[in-house]
Amino acid sequence: MNYRLTLQYDGTDFHGWQMQDELRTVQGDLTRALSLIDDRAVIVHGAGRTDAGVHAEAQVASVVLRREMMPDKLRAAINGNVARDLRVTEVEVVPESFHARISARGKTYRYRVFNARYGSPFWARYAHHEPRSLDLRAMRQAAACFNGRHDWTAFASAKTETRTRVRDLTRLEVDDCWSRRGRGRLIEITAAADGFLRYMVRSIAGTLLAVGRGEMDDETIERAISTGDRTLVGATAPAHGLTLIEVHYDEQSGA
Amino acid sequence: MNYRLTLQYDGTDFHGWQMQDELRTVQGDLTRALSLIDDRAVIVHGAGRTDAGVHAEAQVASVVLRREMMPDKLRAAINGNVARDLRVTEVEVVPESFHARISARGKTYRYRVFNARYGSPFWARYAHHEPRSLDLRAMRQAAACFNGRHDWTAFASAKTETRTRVRDLTRLEVDDCWSRRGRGRLIEITAAADGFLRYMVRSIAGTLLAVGRGEMDDETIERAISTGDRTLVGATAPAHGLTLIEVHYDEQSGA
Repeated sequence: MNYRLTLQYDGTDFHGWQMQDELRTVQGDLTRALSLIDDRAVIVHGAGRTDAGVHAEAQVASVVLRREMMPDKLRAAINGNVARDLRVTEVEVVPESFHARISARGKTYRYRVFNARYGSPFWARYAHHEPRSLDLRAMRQAAACFNGRHDWTAFASAKTETRTRVRDLTRLEVDDCWSRRGRGRLIEITAAADGFLRYMVRSIAGTLLAVGRGEMDDETIERAISTGDRTLVGATAPAHGLTLIEVHYDEQSGA
Repeated sequence: MNYRLTLQYDGTDFHGWQMQDELRTVQGDLTRALSLIDDRAVIVHGAGRTDAGVHAEAQVASVVLRREMMPDKLRAAINGNVARDLRVTEVEVVPESFHARISARGKTYRYRVFNARYGSPFWARYAHHEPRSLDLRAMRQAAACFNGRHDWTAFASAKTETRTRVRDLTRLEVDDCWSRRGRGRLIEITAAADGFLRYMVRSIAGTLLAVGRGEMDDETIERAISTGDRTLVGATAPAHGLTLIEVHYDEQSGA
């Protein structure tokens, strides 16, 4: 039986998604719980390998189990065997052809910035603290430069090894909302694409923050995109501000 | 010089406000930082002694220092010497007569409940998880029974030693809002009074939750208030759902 799992996790205390010896990871914790349930070593596939410190509101994973279980029972069994900073929110039985990573058509990420003189203890785990004041109008205008199908070499880790660095960024929004738990402004940068290179969202967020502080203009962004020159873009924003919001699938793929 | 400090803290990793040997407390961390700054042992007075696990969005403390410092400098000096789960958001110079606890005229607390089948990793630190569905209308109706000046013996720790257990509850509201970070309903119980006995808010919250689950009626609440019988009230709700929202002072007291 092939199962699709929807997961939430607070990435703070995980060394990212991907299984690593001796280090606590999301894939590691899930694999341990599922292997216990299926009474054999299983392989859990995730839609995306979130880095250390990155959170997920709806990561998707798939796993083939020998045991046939009601989705609700399986969900309860997994949640009973993992710590409370990781939760399975949904379990569905899906066709054999469904694979969390290969079937994915795109993803949405959100980068959160807490903009106030001092950081908030309540946002310290989930948002990057920016003490300088930010020009949101400039950030929104700059965001429009990024949209579309580009080679994202300038906005990716130099070590990225993929067939192609071309991705289609279909949405990049800058929204401001107020934190209900603390004082100060919470800014959310939401990005959707058919796929992201490693560090791409954090690099775009870091560049938009540089624009917000008045340290970069739209022309430089356009030049970075067209030339692939990494030295032109802003510093990669820290991992803990980033959350995977959604993984997109074709309707027929088993969602 | 007498200083008034406004503080935020994530109570998860503190053993409450009050200084204790060997244990990390908010008063302990503040005292250490301020004693370093003033180059002598100082005494920090808090408006309320929050219990282990309880958070604060605006706790108030007062401290007399020999050094005269600009408020902004003092704030930066303290924040530079405490961990990021504790922040001083405001510092003011106040008249000698101001004392954070003695001058306080009342407080507002908020109890957060995450109401969903499974808990959310993002609310696990700040809200109590209630998996059963809650009747909000019944909870709101019951909340009205609590308002006013009563002897709160039934809703306080048996060990409470105070001159009187009479307090004036001026506000008790049950609001629902949706969590932006997870899935499920976030319910907020907000209580304001001229003072609270130990465990009083958590005991009221636990009783309202029992009402929400259909396990208690208004008549029982009224009987508990009038008789002081602790066996009639709901279980004390856990500490981590509670946040000190505001401390009230007379305008002339140095705010």
